[in-house]
Amino acid sequence: MTTTQTSPLNAVNLEAVVGLAGKIAEEPQAGATTWRADVKWTGAFRSEASIREFAPVPSDEPAALGGDDTAANPVEQLLGALGNCLAVGYAANASVAGITINELDIVVEGDLDLHTFLGLADGHAGYSDIRVIVNLESDASPDQLADLHTKVTSTSPVGHTLAAAIPVDIQLG
Amino acid sequence: MTTTQTSPLNAVNLEAVVGLAGKIAEEPQAGATTWRADVKWTGAFRSEASIREFAPVPSDEPAALGGDDTAANPVEQLLGALGNCLAVGYAANASVAGITINELDIVVEGDLDLHTFLGLADGHAGYSDIRVIVNLESDASPDQLADLHTKVTSTSPVGHTLAAAIPVDIQLG
Repeated sequence: MTTTQTSPLNAVNLEAVVGLAGKIAEEPQAGATTWRADVKWTGAFRSEASIREFAPVPSDEPAALGGDDTAANPVEQLLGALGNCLAVGYAANASVAGITINELDIVVEGDLDLHTFLGLADGHAGYSDIRVIVNLESDASPDQLADLHTKVTSTSPVGHTLAAAIPVDIQLG
Repeated sequence: MTTTQTSPLNAVNLEAVVGLAGKIAEEPQAGATTWRADVKWTGAFRSEASIREFAPVPSDEPAALGGDDTAANPVEQLLGALGNCLAVGYAANASVAGITINELDIVVEGDLDLHTFLGLADGHAGYSDIRVIVNLESDASPDQLADLHTKVTSTSPVGHTLAAAIPVDIQLG
């Protein structure tokens, strides 16, 4: 007797995702999630973000901005979060569509004018625009990849958070 | 002869920040910056974001979302980036105002409904709202802290990016 072990496509545990979707389809309230990060200032422009049980991730600013340049800065982390979110989206939706991903690299860039941050002007202190190039190696057809791309961009939690105006309430405790 | 060494307030290198602001005040084009993250998919829902010369930071999803739960997920990273950005803002503006920060902890939470991400509905896949509680220990007066808070929230690059609708252009390379 022989047993055949098949690795799941793209190593994605689709069963878990489909199971969760089924549960939320039955109980819409189960789709309501809250996420959290605890940030601790550690001196100068350094801080660290603790998320669940994971090791704190450090943050700093480049020397030109007054930091010690020991870690990526917050606006870079934001771009990383977008790229990571799109990676999950491609892996999930490709697996649903039966597409094997051979390689996936995502370049995220954003333009930011420092005037407001530095107190030289009022107005918008954030990114003026964000550009993403997705390099996906796969044997899927251009049509399949275009469909995949549409699915990913229309369901990306971080992508949609950036592309929409989100109420951000900041209070001194 | 004795020399006196004074540590800068909050350990912040205000000279660098003031120098950069002065340079940008003279040459507005110097305020235009572009930031970048390179994300590589590493299988399943895992990926890592490389920023400049720093070690890649891993990303994953919790098991309930089909991941291997080896790292914070992208929507958590987004909240961490906001908290880190506010920490820089408090440190910088407190130092300008002559306020010593004894401790600074920032709790960031966001609500996100999973229906769109899981393909159960169309529409907004991102956070519906984000809440931040800033716990700042300092000897400054309540009025000074209120002024500081206003300065920080009106100049936060990540805060403003989230609170505004930013053009996000995602292309297959």
